[in-house]
Amino acid sequence: MHPDHAPDVALVYDPIADRLREECGVFGVFGTPDAAAHTALGLHALQHRGQEATGIVAHDGERFNVHRDQGHVGDVFSSKTVMDGLAGHAAIGHNRYSTTGAPNPRNVQPLFAELDLGGVALAHNGNLTNALALRHELIGQGCIFQSTTDTEVILHLMARSSGRLVERLIAALKQVIGAYSLVVLTPQKLIGVRDPHGVRPLVLGRLGESYILASETVALDIIGAELVREVEPGEMVIITEDGLESRKPFFPVAPRPCLFEYIYFARPDSIMGGRSVYQVRKGIGRELAAECPADADVVIPVPDSGVPAAMGFAERAGLPFELGIIRNHYVGRTFIEPTNEIRHLGVRLKHNANRSVLEGKRVVLIDDSIVRGTTSVKIVQMVREAGAAEVHMRVASPPIRFPCFYGIDTPDREALLASRMSVEGMAHYIDVDSLGFISLDGVYRALGEPGRDAAHPQFLDHYFTGEYPIRLVDEEAGSRSRQQLTLLREAG
Amino acid sequence: MHPDHAPDVALVYDPIADRLREECGVFGVFGTPDAAAHTALGLHALQHRGQEATGIVAHDGERFNVHRDQGHVGDVFSSKTVMDGLAGHAAIGHNRYSTTGAPNPRNVQPLFAELDLGGVALAHNGNLTNALALRHELIGQGCIFQSTTDTEVILHLMARSSGRLVERLIAALKQVIGAYSLVVLTPQKLIGVRDPHGVRPLVLGRLGESYILASETVALDIIGAELVREVEPGEMVIITEDGLESRKPFFPVAPRPCLFEYIYFARPDSIMGGRSVYQVRKGIGRELAAECPADADVVIPVPDSGVPAAMGFAERAGLPFELGIIRNHYVGRTFIEPTNEIRHLGVRLKHNANRSVLEGKRVVLIDDSIVRGTTSVKIVQMVREAGAAEVHMRVASPPIRFPCFYGIDTPDREALLASRMSVEGMAHYIDVDSLGFISLDGVYRALGEPGRDAAHPQFLDHYFTGEYPIRLVDEEAGSRSRQQLTLLREAG
Amino acid sequence: MHPDHAPDVALVYDPIADRLREECGVFGVFGTPDAAAHTALGLHALQHRGQEATGIVAHDGERFNVHRDQGHVGDVFSSKTVMDGLAGHAAIGHNRYSTTGAPNPRNVQPLFAELDLGGVALAHNGNLTNALALRHELIGQGCIFQSTTDTEVILHLMARSSGRLVERLIAALKQVIGAYSLVVLTPQKLIGVRDPHGVRPLVLGRLGESYILASETVALDIIGAELVREVEPGEMVIITEDGLESRKPFFPVAPRPCLFEYIYFARPDSIMGGRSVYQVRKGIGRELAAECPADADVVIPVPDSGVPAAMGFAERAGLPFELGIIRNHYVGRTFIEPTNEIRHLGVRLKHNANRSVLEGKRVVLIDDSIVRGTTSVKIVQMVREAGAAEVHMRVASPPIRFPCFYGIDTPDREALLASRMSVEGMAHYIDVDSLGFISLDGVYRALGEPGRDAAHPQFLDHYFTGEYPIRLVDEEAGSRSRQQLTLLREAG
Amino acid sequence: MHPDHAPDVALVYDPIADRLREECGVFGVFGTPDAAAHTALGLHALQHRGQEATGIVAHDGERFNVHRDQGHVGDVFSSKTVMDGLAGHAAIGHNRYSTTGAPNPRNVQPLFAELDLGGVALAHNGNLTNALALRHELIGQGCIFQSTTDTEVILHLMARSSGRLVERLIAALKQVIGAYSLVVLTPQKLIGVRDPHGVRPLVLGRLGESYILASETVALDIIGAELVREVEPGEMVIITEDGLESRKPFFPVAPRPCLFEYIYFARPDSIMGGRSVYQVRKGIGRELAAECPADADVVIPVPDSGVPAAMGFAERAGLPFELGIIRNHYVGRTFIEPTNEIRHLGVRLKHNANRSVLEGKRVVLIDDSIVRGTTSVKIVQMVREAGAAEVHMRVASPPIRFPCFYGIDTPDREALLASRMSVEGMAHYIDVDSLGFISLDGVYRALGEPGRDAAHPQFLDHYFTGEYPIRLVDEEAGSRSRQQLTLLREAG
Repeated sequence: MHPDHAPDVALVYDPIADRLREECGVFGVFGTPDAAAHTALGLHALQHRGQEATGIVAHDGERFNVHRDQGHVGDVFSSKTVMDGLAGHAAIGHNRYSTTGAPNPRNVQPLFAELDLGGVALAHNGNLTNALALRHELIGQGCIFQSTTDTEVILHLMARSSGRLVERLIAALKQVIGAYSLVVLTPQKLIGVRDPHGVRPLVLGRLGESYILASETVALDIIGAELVREVEPGEMVIITEDGLESRKPFFPVAPRPCLFEYIYFARPDSIMGGRSVYQVRKGIGRELAAECPADADVVIPVPDSGVPAAMGFAERAGLPFELGIIRNHYVGRTFIEPTNEIRHLGVRLKHNANRSVLEGKRVVLIDDSIVRGTTSVKIVQMVREAGAAEVHMRVASPPIRFPCFYGIDTPDREALLASRMSVEGMAHYIDVDSLGFISLDGVYRALGEPGRDAAHPQFLDHYFTGEYPIRLVDEEAGSRSRQQLTLLREAG
Repeated sequence: MHPDHAPDVALVYDPIADRLREECGVFGVFGTPDAAAHTALGLHALQHRGQEATGIVAHDGERFNVHRDQGHVGDVFSSKTVMDGLAGHAAIGHNRYSTTGAPNPRNVQPLFAELDLGGVALAHNGNLTNALALRHELIGQGCIFQSTTDTEVILHLMARSSGRLVERLIAALKQVIGAYSLVVLTPQKLIGVRDPHGVRPLVLGRLGESYILASETVALDIIGAELVREVEPGEMVIITEDGLESRKPFFPVAPRPCLFEYIYFARPDSIMGGRSVYQVRKGIGRELAAECPADADVVIPVPDSGVPAAMGFAERAGLPFELGIIRNHYVGRTFIEPTNEIRHLGVRLKHNANRSVLEGKRVVLIDDSIVRGTTSVKIVQMVREAGAAEVHMRVASPPIRFPCFYGIDTPDREALLASRMSVEGMAHYIDVDSLGFISLDGVYRALGEPGRDAAHPQFLDHYFTGEYPIRLVDEEAGSRSRQQLTLLREAG
Repeated sequence: MHPDHAPDVALVYDPIADRLREECGVFGVFGTPDAAAHTALGLHALQHRGQEATGIVAHDGERFNVHRDQGHVGDVFSSKTVMDGLAGHAAIGHNRYSTTGAPNPRNVQPLFAELDLGGVALAHNGNLTNALALRHELIGQGCIFQSTTDTEVILHLMARSSGRLVERLIAALKQVIGAYSLVVLTPQKLIGVRDPHGVRPLVLGRLGESYILASETVALDIIGAELVREVEPGEMVIITEDGLESRKPFFPVAPRPCLFEYIYFARPDSIMGGRSVYQVRKGIGRELAAECPADADVVIPVPDSGVPAAMGFAERAGLPFELGIIRNHYVGRTFIEPTNEIRHLGVRLKHNANRSVLEGKRVVLIDDSIVRGTTSVKIVQMVREAGAAEVHMRVASPPIRFPCFYGIDTPDREALLASRMSVEGMAHYIDVDSLGFISLDGVYRALGEPGRDAAHPQFLDHYFTGEYPIRLVDEEAGSRSRQQLTLLREAG
Repeated sequence: MHPDHAPDVALVYDPIADRLREECGVFGVFGTPDAAAHTALGLHALQHRGQEATGIVAHDGERFNVHRDQGHVGDVFSSKTVMDGLAGHAAIGHNRYSTTGAPNPRNVQPLFAELDLGGVALAHNGNLTNALALRHELIGQGCIFQSTTDTEVILHLMARSSGRLVERLIAALKQVIGAYSLVVLTPQKLIGVRDPHGVRPLVLGRLGESYILASETVALDIIGAELVREVEPGEMVIITEDGLESRKPFFPVAPRPCLFEYIYFARPDSIMGGRSVYQVRKGIGRELAAECPADADVVIPVPDSGVPAAMGFAERAGLPFELGIIRNHYVGRTFIEPTNEIRHLGVRLKHNANRSVLEGKRVVLIDDSIVRGTTSVKIVQMVREAGAAEVHMRVASPPIRFPCFYGIDTPDREALLASRMSVEGMAHYIDVDSLGFISLDGVYRALGEPGRDAAHPQFLDHYFTGEYPIRLVDEEAGSRSRQQLTLLREAG
C-alpha cells in the first residue's frame, strides 16, 4: 500500500462514505381501505433509495393523518398503534437520505401545509436548482420556512397562488427549476408529476381498483400490483374517485432520464424505461469485457452492486465468475468509533475476502463506479492480502468527473478521484496492475442505443461529461448565498 | 355522600382536572456567556406555570441554537450534550401547559422564524382573542402554519411587515388583540413586551452586567438576580449591548392585571405589583374570616394553595391552624388507569387526611377556589370519614361563574359549579355544613385597594363578574370557525 | 459567610445530599383480583421511603409475574401493558433507595428464587449486619449471587434449608442478624415478618376479604383499608386462603423501634406505634421551645419536614408561625451540571426565601436534624440575605454523632457535623446567632415516655448515643472484607 | 397454487420462520489493551450466528466490566460511553438467538458468577442435553437460578466444585452432556473448550501478542488476525500472560462436527475443518447436478444461502447461472402486522422475482434445504408468476427428517416437511415439476470424504438419519419435566 493511503483507513467505518447516494424514494396509492399499509410495503421495497428517515401521510376522508420518523421503514411502521393512526383510503410516503449535516426532524417528508382550500401533502424525489433563490425571495415576501428542504418552496408557491389546488401546483412547478418526481395528496386527489426532462423515475401501477405511483416497479411487485406505464417526463397524472386524468402542463423538452439509476441506484429487479436494470448491468459488463479485456483467471465483483456487470464480463470474457468478496449485510451506519490501535488494524466491517478463490489468481475486479477511490484502495489491498497474483480493475461506468445537482449526493469536484488524476494515476493510486473504464458510448449501447447522440443526448450524463442541461441557478449565484441563511440548530 | 357524586370518584386520578391552569411562563436573559443555563434555572423556578413542555433558544453571535421537548425543565435540560448545544450570550425560554387535545411537538415554544432581516425567536404567555380570525386571513393570503398555537400569527404578521425587526414586532402586535407577555430574541436584541392591559406579569431583573426578563420574581431569586422593576402594561423594553431602551408603542389603556395570579397562580414567594403574594393570600384569609366567620375548633387548609389563606383565617378567627390534609408531592399526571374495582375504592392519590387533628373536630376547611366542585366533594368526604364533626368550607376567592379567554384554561361555563347553582346549592352538593366565599371587594381590600372601583376596575376579574375588557373576537365569531381547520394529526 | 463554606455551594444541586435516607418501603396484599393495582397504589403512598426503583411481583395461581424498574411508582406502573402483565390475587412490592454507587438493575426488589418446592419472592426494608459474612460463607459453599443486596442471602439460606417454605424462611432468618421488615410471597401464602427488635415498621390492614401488609398506615389509607394492628417485633404473620396465622419463632428481646421514623422518615399522616407522627413532631417542637427558648419575632420551618415541629415550637413559645422558606416541589435528582459561573451564583434549586416575613425579623429557624451541616449553611445564608436581623436555629432532634447500620443511609462518622465539633462550633460553622438541639429525653417525652430508660431504652437511638443493640458483625470484621468481592460492573 | 397453501401466506412476514437457526457465536481475546473493541468487531463478523442479543465481559486487572443488551452488535456497542465502560486487556463476547418464547434480559450471555476464588464469565455455543436434569438436581440442593439458559448449570457446577478455577471448570464439564464450544474469562485466564465430539466450531487465532478464540475464522479476518488452528474436539486451551497451554481432560471419542455448519450456518468465507465453506457448497452443487440433473434453461439460486451451490450446479450442468430472485436485505424481524386485505396480497417482503431471466424459461431452482416447506411454496409460486415455464427444484442437503438437540433450533418433527411426506408428495406440495435432493454420501463427497462411513460417521448428521450420538437425557425424561419449573414472567 502507498504510505499516503493511511489516513483513509478509518473510512471503512462509514461504509457508505464512498458511495453516491440517491436522495429519495416516493410512493402513493389511491382507492384502498388500507392505503397506509400498502404505502409502508412500497416504501420498504424502495428502502435502498433512502435509509435515514421515512414518513407516510394518509387521508381518511376527513383529515390528514401523518407519521414521520428517522429510521428504516420496517422499524418506523412496525407498531400497530402507528398504523392504526394512519387510517385512510389514500396515502403518500417518502424515504429520505440526509444530504447535509445533522438530520433535522422538521425535514422528514412528506411535507404538509394547510391552504385556504384545504390541506396538501407532498413528497419529492429530486433536487431543485433554484430553491435557494426562491426561498430568499419568498422570505423577503414574508414567508416563514420551517424546514431546510428545497421541497418546501413548492408548498409556499402553492400557498401564494390562486385557483384550485391542481392549478396552484402547476403554477408553483412552473416557477421551479430542477429535477422532481412528486407525489401529492389532497383530500380528494392523488397527483403524480415528473419534471419535463424526466430525470427521476416515476411509474404508474394498478392493483384492483386502486392506482399506485412509485419510484420503481419493485414497489409494485411487493404488493402484487401491475405496472401500467411510466409517468412520462413533464406529465401530471391526477387520480380521483372518477379515475385517472393526464395533463402535460409544461413546455415540452427532450427527456433526459438519469443514467445512474441504471448503473447503480435502481434495484436490479426494477424495470426502467422498459429495460430490465439487471440486463442493462450485465450488458455493461459485456461491453466492458469487449472494450477493456484482461488476461486473468477469475472475475470477482465488488458486491452487491458490481455483481451483474461481473457476470456479464465473465460471460463475454469466457472466464469463471466467483464470489471472491463476501459482504456483511448487518453493517449499519453506526458503530464504535475506532481507537488508534483499532484504526491501524484496517478493519473490514463490510467486506471480507474469500481467500479460496483469490489465492494465486490473476483477478479481474468489477465495481460499478469509482467516486473518491478510498473504497477501491481498501478492496484492492484486501484482495492482494488474500493472495491474488494480479489485480485488474474494470469499472462499469465511465470516470466520474463532475458533481450532480439534480438529486444525487456527490462529493465536491475536487474530491472525485477521476477529476484529480488520469486513469494511469488512478491505477497507481489504487494499486492495481491495470485499470479500465467502460466508455460512455458503451453504456449507451448497453441501454440499446447505438451510442450517445452528442447533439441530443438521450440520458442525463453530466457526471461524466460536465454537460448540465437544466440550469443551475443557485450554483451560479455562488455558494455564498447558502450561508446567508440564519440556521436554527436543534441541540441535544 | 350524595349518590349523584359517584361518577366523580375516578377523577381523582387526574389530580389537576379540577384546577385552573395558567398556560405559560417565560424567561429571557441578555449579556452572559451562560445564557441557556440561567434560562434553565429561571424556567425551573417557573415550573408551576407550565409543566407539559419546555424550550430554550439561545443565540451565540452567529446562529440560533434550540432545544425544545416535552417534560419538566429539570429533565429536558439535564444533559450536558443538550446544554453544550445551547451556547449563547442571550437566550429565551418557555414553560407550557397544553390546553387542547394531544400535545403536539410543533407547538412547543419558543417559536422561531427566519425573516429576510434575520431570525427571530419568541415565547408567549397569555392568549390572543383574535388569533383564529388572523390565522384564517393569513392562510387566505398564502401563509403556511406549522403549529396550532395562537402565538404563530405574531411571527407571520412580522414576516409580512416591513422595516426593522422591532418595527415589525410593533406592527404585528398592533394587529393582535388579547393578553400577552412576550420575550423575543433576535441576533442583537432581547425584547420584552406586555400587552396594554398588563394582564400577564413580566418583570425586569439584573445580575451583574446582564438583564433578565421573567414572568415572576422567583425566577430572579433562583439565580441571585435583583428585581429592577416590572415591565409596565403596554411597555416594550429592548435590551442590547448598549443597554436598555423603553418604548410605549400602544394606545394607552387602564391596566388590568389578572386577579388570579394573586389568588392561585403565582408562587407565594413572588412579589407582584409590589405586593408579596404570600401576604396578599394571608390578607384574603383574614378578610374571609371577617366576612364569613365559622363556629369551629380548627382551621385546615387544602394544601398547598390554601395554606396562606388558612393561616390568615386562623389568625383573624383566633382558631388553631393545623395540617389536617397531607399532600403527596410525588403525584404526576400519569398513573395506572383504574379498574372498576379500584375505582370504587375512591382512591386518594394526591391527598390524605391527618386523622389526629380532624377526629371529633368542627373544621373550617380553606380552599383557594371552587371550579367544577369535584375536588371539593372528595376532600369533604375524606375529612368527614376521618371523623370531622362539622365541615365549614371557606373559599379564598369569589364564586367563579365565567370562563377566561386571556390565558387561563377554564372549563366551559356550564361546567363551573358556581354558574350552575346558588351558594346554598353548592353547599348541599359538596356536602358541607356551611359554605362561604370571600367577596370581590374583600379580595380588592386584601390587595390594598379600598374596594373594587366599578367604573374603573383595578384588576381583571371577569371570572367573577363576566366583564371582559378585551374584545373576544374569535369567541364572538363562534366556535364553528374553530372546526374549519384541516387538522394534520400526528400518529403513533 | 465564612470563606471555608464556598466549596459547599455546589451541593445545592443534589437536594438530598445532606439528608438521611431510608432505604425502603414494602407492601403486600392477599385475596383480591386486582392485587398488583392495590400494590402500586400502596407503593405510591410509600414513595417517600424510596424513590430510585420500584417493583411488584404478583402470583396468578399458576405463576409469578414481575415488573421492576428504576423510577417513581407512578411512572413505572403507568402503562396498561405493564399492569395487564401483573395478573394475580396476591402481590408484594418494594420501593428502594440506592445506598452505594451506581444503581444496578439486578438489585431492584422484590427478589425472586425458584426453590425445589416452588418459587418465592421477597421484599425487604432494613439492613442485615452480617450479610457480608454470610455471603462469603455461602459463596464458599458454591452459591452464586446475582445481586449485591444484603437481602439475597435470605433467599440462599432458604434454598439451602429443608422443610416447607415457612420453615425454611424461619431457618434462614435465624441465621441473619440485623433489622428487617419483610414481605414474602409464595404460590399459596403472603408472609410478613419483623425482626425481634422491630426496628423497621410493618402494619397489618384489611380491606374487605383481603389482608394487607405495609410499611406505614398511609399505604392503607390510600386504598381505604383499615388498620388492624402492627405486626409485632419478632412476629411472623402468614396469610392464606384460610385466613391469618401468627407465629413468634424468634427468641424474644425488648423492642427497639427506630426513633428516626418519628423524627423524619415516616409521613406525618402515618400512625406508628399507636402515635400520630404529626402530633409527635409537634410535641417535639413544644419540648424544644421549652428546652431552648429564643428571643425572637417569628418561627420559620425548613420545609417540609420541619413544619410540624415549628408549629409546636411557635405554639409553646407564643410566637407567630410563618412560611419564610418556600420549597420547589419540582426538584428531581438530575439537573444540569453547573458551570463555574453558575456555581458561584449559589443557586437555590430547592428552597427560596419569602422575604416578606423575614426582612428585619429575629427568626427562629426549625429543622428536623443536622447531618453534614451543608444544607444548614445555605439555608441560613439565604435567610440572612433576605434580611433576617437574627437567626436562631433550633433542631428537632439531638446531635447526630454516630452512623446507622440498620437501614438508614448515613454518611461516615467523620462527615457528621456533630461528631466533628461542639454545639458552639456548629453555631459558628453554620453562622447562626444561637443554636439549640432538643435533648434525647425531650424526644422520648414527646413520644409519651417519661424519658429515656438508660437500662432498657425504649427506642433505637444509636445515632445520638453510639449504643448499638444489634451486633455489627460485618462492621467488626472490617471494611476490608467489603472489598474482597469481585464486582461485576454494568457498563453504559 | 394448491388451496391448502393459503394459510401459509402470512408467514412471509417472518422471514426466518422457515429457516434453521444456529443459537450462538462466541469470541474471546487475551492480551490487548483494547480487548472489548476487538470483541465487538469479532462479534460483528459473527452476527449471522445470532441476532437477538449480544454481550461483552472484559476484565481490567481489577474487575469485570459488562454490557449486555438485545439488538445487533453494531447498535449495542455503538456508544462511546458503553465502550469506555468496557476497559480491559481480556474480554469474551456472545451473540444469541432466542430459542423459546419471549426474550428474557437475564438470559443474555456472557453469564457471570462470583466464586470464592474470584469471578468467572462464560459464553456458550451449543446445547446441553442434560441441563434440565442437572437444574432440577441443583435446585434440590439449594441452588438459585437466575436465567433459564442451559448454560447456567455449568456455573453452578463450578461453584460447587473444589480446587482452582480450571479444575472446577473441568469438573463441571465432566457432568454435562451435549454440545458446547465455550469461552471462559477469569481474572487471569482466557479459556476455550470444545466438547469431545467437537459439534460446534471454535478456532484459535493470533494477532501480535494476543490470542483469540472465535466460532469462525471470519472473526479473525475482520481484525486482521491469523488463524493458528482449530481448537480440537475435547481440547481445553488456557491462555494466560505466560502463553497458551493445551489440555485434553475428557475421555476421547470420535469427532462429529455438525454437517449443517457447512451446508448453511457458517459464512461462505469461513475456513472450517481446513475446508473453504464456499468451495464445499459449490462442490455440493456439483454433486447435486451429477446426482439429479434437470433438463432446463437456467439455474437460479434462492439467495443468499443457495448461491454457491447454484454456481456449482450451473458449472457442472453447463447451464447459465442467473440471479432470478433478488433479496431485500433491509428486512428485519419486525414489520406491520398484516390486515386481512394485505394478507391476501401474498406480500413478498424478502424476495422479489427478476422477471427478465425467468420469463419463458425452464428453471432449476437451488435452495440449501427444505425445513417446513412454506418458504419453498412461496418462492415457487413467485417464480411461476414471473413466467417460468417449468420449475425444477434441487436441494443442496438431504431431506431433513429429525430435529436437532445440539444447538440448532429446528421445528418439532411433525413440522418437518420431509418427515411428513415422500419426495413425490413434497414436489406436489410445493408445486414443482421435479424435485431432487442431494444424497448424504454426496454431501460427504463434497467434503472430501469417500462417502459416509456408516460404522463411524465422520460428521453429525442426525437431521437426515435420526442417529443421535450424544445422549438426549432431558428428551428421554419427557417434555413434562420442562413444565415443572415455576416461571417468573417479566411483565411490560
